[in-house]
Amino acid sequence: MSFLQIPKDSHFPLQNLPYGVFSIGKEAPQIGVAIGDQILALKEVSNLFCGPILSKERDVFNQPTLNKFMQLGHEAWKEARATLQSVLSAENPALRDNADLQKRALVKQCDATMHLPVTIGDYTDFYSSIHHATNVGTMFRGKENALMPNWKHIPVGYHGRASSVIVSGTPVRRPCGQTRPADDQPPTFNPCRLLDFELEMGFFVGVGNELGSSIPVSKAQEHIFGMVLVNDWSARDIQKWEYVPLGPFLGKNFGTSISPWIVTMEALAPFAIANMEHDVPVLPYLQHDDKYSFDIKLSVAIQGEDMQEPSAITNSNFKYMYWTMKQQLAQHTVNGCNSQTGDLYASGTISGEEPSSFGSMLELCWKGTKTIDLGGSHTRKFLKDGDNVILSGYCQGDGYRVGFGTCEGKVLPAKNPFS
Amino acid sequence: MSFLQIPKDSHFPLQNLPYGVFSIGKEAPQIGVAIGDQILALKEVSNLFCGPILSKERDVFNQPTLNKFMQLGHEAWKEARATLQSVLSAENPALRDNADLQKRALVKQCDATMHLPVTIGDYTDFYSSIHHATNVGTMFRGKENALMPNWKHIPVGYHGRASSVIVSGTPVRRPCGQTRPADDQPPTFNPCRLLDFELEMGFFVGVGNELGSSIPVSKAQEHIFGMVLVNDWSARDIQKWEYVPLGPFLGKNFGTSISPWIVTMEALAPFAIANMEHDVPVLPYLQHDDKYSFDIKLSVAIQGEDMQEPSAITNSNFKYMYWTMKQQLAQHTVNGCNSQTGDLYASGTISGEEPSSFGSMLELCWKGTKTIDLGGSHTRKFLKDGDNVILSGYCQGDGYRVGFGTCEGKVLPAKNPFS
Repeated sequence: MSFLQIPKDSHFPLQNLPYGVFSIGKEAPQIGVAIGDQILALKEVSNLFCGPILSKERDVFNQPTLNKFMQLGHEAWKEARATLQSVLSAENPALRDNADLQKRALVKQCDATMHLPVTIGDYTDFYSSIHHATNVGTMFRGKENALMPNWKHIPVGYHGRASSVIVSGTPVRRPCGQTRPADDQPPTFNPCRLLDFELEMGFFVGVGNELGSSIPVSKAQEHIFGMVLVNDWSARDIQKWEYVPLGPFLGKNFGTSISPWIVTMEALAPFAIANMEHDVPVLPYLQHDDKYSFDIKLSVAIQGEDMQEPSAITNSNFKYMYWTMKQQLAQHTVNGCNSQTGDLYASGTISGEEPSSFGSMLELCWKGTKTIDLGGSHTRKFLKDGDNVILSGYCQGDGYRVGFGTCEGKVLPAKNPFS
Repeated sequence: MSFLQIPKDSHFPLQNLPYGVFSIGKEAPQIGVAIGDQILALKEVSNLFCGPILSKERDVFNQPTLNKFMQLGHEAWKEARATLQSVLSAENPALRDNADLQKRALVKQCDATMHLPVTIGDYTDFYSSIHHATNVGTMFRGKENALMPNWKHIPVGYHGRASSVIVSGTPVRRPCGQTRPADDQPPTFNPCRLLDFELEMGFFVGVGNELGSSIPVSKAQEHIFGMVLVNDWSARDIQKWEYVPLGPFLGKNFGTSISPWIVTMEALAPFAIANMEHDVPVLPYLQHDDKYSFDIKLSVAIQGEDMQEPSAITNSNFKYMYWTMKQQLAQHTVNGCNSQTGDLYASGTISGEEPSSFGSMLELCWKGTKTIDLGGSHTRKFLKDGDNVILSGYCQGDGYRVGFGTCEGKVLPAKNPFS
C-alpha cells in the first residue's frame, strides 16, 4: 500500500511504477515514475537510492532520458523498483512525512508534458500476431496462401524509422504520397485515402549486445527493460504501391506513436501466461519453455471531431502473440546484429481470432468491404481528419491494475508539401 | 596548388578535402580533413576559420563527430571549404610557414585510426540502379517481369539498420542464421553459405527536415552534405528465406561498411553529368533538370588469404544510377518523414549494363551459375572466410583525382553464437 490514495482502476498503483520523461512549463525534461495521478520526480529523491548499485550511480536519475539508467542492467532495475516501492509505501516515513520533499518531488500528471522516454537508436517492427498475419494474407493472397512459408519458422520483422517515433499526444499529419488507385493507370500523387492505425506493443532494449555477438533466447529477458503501447500509423494505399519487393517504407515512416510510460518487465511478471502453442516445431535457438506471454488487455477507441466521446472499436490482448519477445530478440541478434540501449522492438499488429479483436481498420473493415460502427450515425472504414485514436492497455490484478495509460494521436489534415 | 606535395593519383588533393574522424593512439577521436597522405586536424587550426558563420562556431571543429558542423548548413560548408583551400594553399603562409603549427595539425594517415565520421540516426538503402534491379529481377522472376511496376515511378527503398554501420577496416563476421536450402525441407540453422558484398555509395544528410514537412526536389541539394563508399554486406541465403513480404532484414543487418572520408558535394560538383534518361515520365514532385548524376569510377577487388595481392573483379560507375540523390531525398520526405543530420541514405547496388560492371557477386556469378576468376587458380562464386573486400572510387579531373579512398572489410569465419 502506498501512502498516496490510489483508486482501484488506476493504471499506476504501487505494483506498477513505470518510468517516463516529463517536463513542467519550460523546465528541462526529467525522469519520473507514475504513481496514481501523480509523478515522482526521481532527481528529487535520488539520495534515497541506497542499494549497492544505485548508491554509486545516482546521476542516472538526473538525465533527460532513461538510457543511462537502462544501461545499468537488470540487477539495477530490480534494485530501483525495490527502493521505489519502499519510498512510496505507507510504511516508509522518508517521503510520507516530509511535506517539503513531497512538494518538490510529486507533480500532478495533468500539469506535466510527457516526452519520449528514451533516445531510440533503431526501431524494428515484427509481424508476430498469427491472426493479423492470417487476416492480411487472406485479404491479399487468399485463405490457402495466407501465411508465407517462413512465418511459423522465424519471427518475421523489418526495420522501421526511428526518427519519426513520437510520444502520445503528438498529432499526426495525414501523409501525401504516390499511390496507384487503378492497376491499369499511372500512379498519382495525393493525400493518403486509406489512413489506418495498428494496435501494437513494443519493448525497449535495456542492455544491448556487441556487433558479432548474439543474445540467446535463454538470456533475452535480462536485456528487455519494459514495454509501451505502439500505434504504427499506416497509409494503406501508399504501402500497397511501394512495398514489393523491399517492404513497407513511406506507408509507415511518417509517424509511430508510443505511450509515454515504460512499464517494466518486473511489473508485468505476475501477468505472464503460457506462450501460444506452436503447431510447427521451431529451431532450437528459438525454443524456450518459460512463460513470456502476457495477459494485457488492449483496446482502441476513436473520437471523431463531431463525437461527444470516444467509441471503442476493438478489444484485443497481447496474449495473441505467436512469437514471444524473447524469441524476437534472439532472432534479431542471431546473425550478430548489435542492439543498443533504447532500441524499440514492436510486436506488429495484435489481432485476436474474432473480428471484435482485430487490431487495424484494414481488418475491421475487411479491406473496405464492411463499415465500422462508432455509435450514433458515426461510421468509418479508414480514419478521417480530426479523428483522435486512443490505444489503451492494462493487466488486471486482484483488486489492482498494472496499466500503460493511453497512446493517443489526432489526425491532422494533409498539407500539400509544395504549396 | 597546396604547399604540400601531392601526387597526381592521390585521392586527396586540394580539390577534394573530405572530412573524417580519426584518433592517434589512445587519444580521443577528432575531426580531420584528408590532404595527400596526411590529415589536417581541424581543432588545431580552428582559429583560422574567420568567415562570417564559422568564426562564431569554431566549437564544431572540436567535436568527436561531424554532426554539429554538418548541422550549420550549406553556406557554412562552402565557407569551410574556402578557408581550408586557402589554409592548405601554397599562397597562404599561416600554416605553410608555421612549423610548430604543422607539427601539431598535420598527421600521417598511416598513423591514424579512422572512426565513423558521424553519429548516424537512421540508415535507408535505396534500390536505384536499373541494371542491378533488372539483373536481380531477371534471376528471380524472369526477364519479362524483371522490374516491378513501381520501379520506374518511385525510387524504391527500405529502412536499414543504423547500429551496424561500421567504418572501413572493421572485419565482418560471417553471420549464422536460418535458411531453407531445399524448398520441400524444413529450414536449418547454419553459417551463411552465400555471403556477398554490394557495391554502393551513400550520402549523408547535413540538414534535415521537421516531421510533417518535406524537402522539395528543387532544394534537396542544400540538405546533402557529401558521399561515401558503402558495402552493404549481404547473406543471400538468409535474405532469400526471410524477405517476403517485409523486405531484407537479418540478411543485411549484420554489418554495413562505409569509407571513412566524406567527400563533399562541393568537391564533386565538377564531375556532375547529365542524369540518366527516364523512358517513363515521373510525377512532378520527382522532376528536376539540373545535373545531379556524377561520374565516379568505382571498383571492387578481393584478396583471399592465400593471394599475394587484391584482384579486381568489377568496374562500375555511380553514373549508372537511374534515380538521383535529389529524387531519393524528395521521395523519402514527401510523406512528411523527418530526416536528421547524420542520416545515411545509400544508393543500392550500382551495376552497369555489362557483366564486367556488375556490383555484387550474386550478379557476377549469376546466382551461382558462373565462376568469378580472381587470377591464378583463384576463383569465387561467393565470399570465402579471410577474403578482404576492397571498394574504391574516384573522379578523374584534368591532372588530379577527387577520390574516396577505399572501403575495406575482411570476412571472419562464422562463430556458433551458442558455443
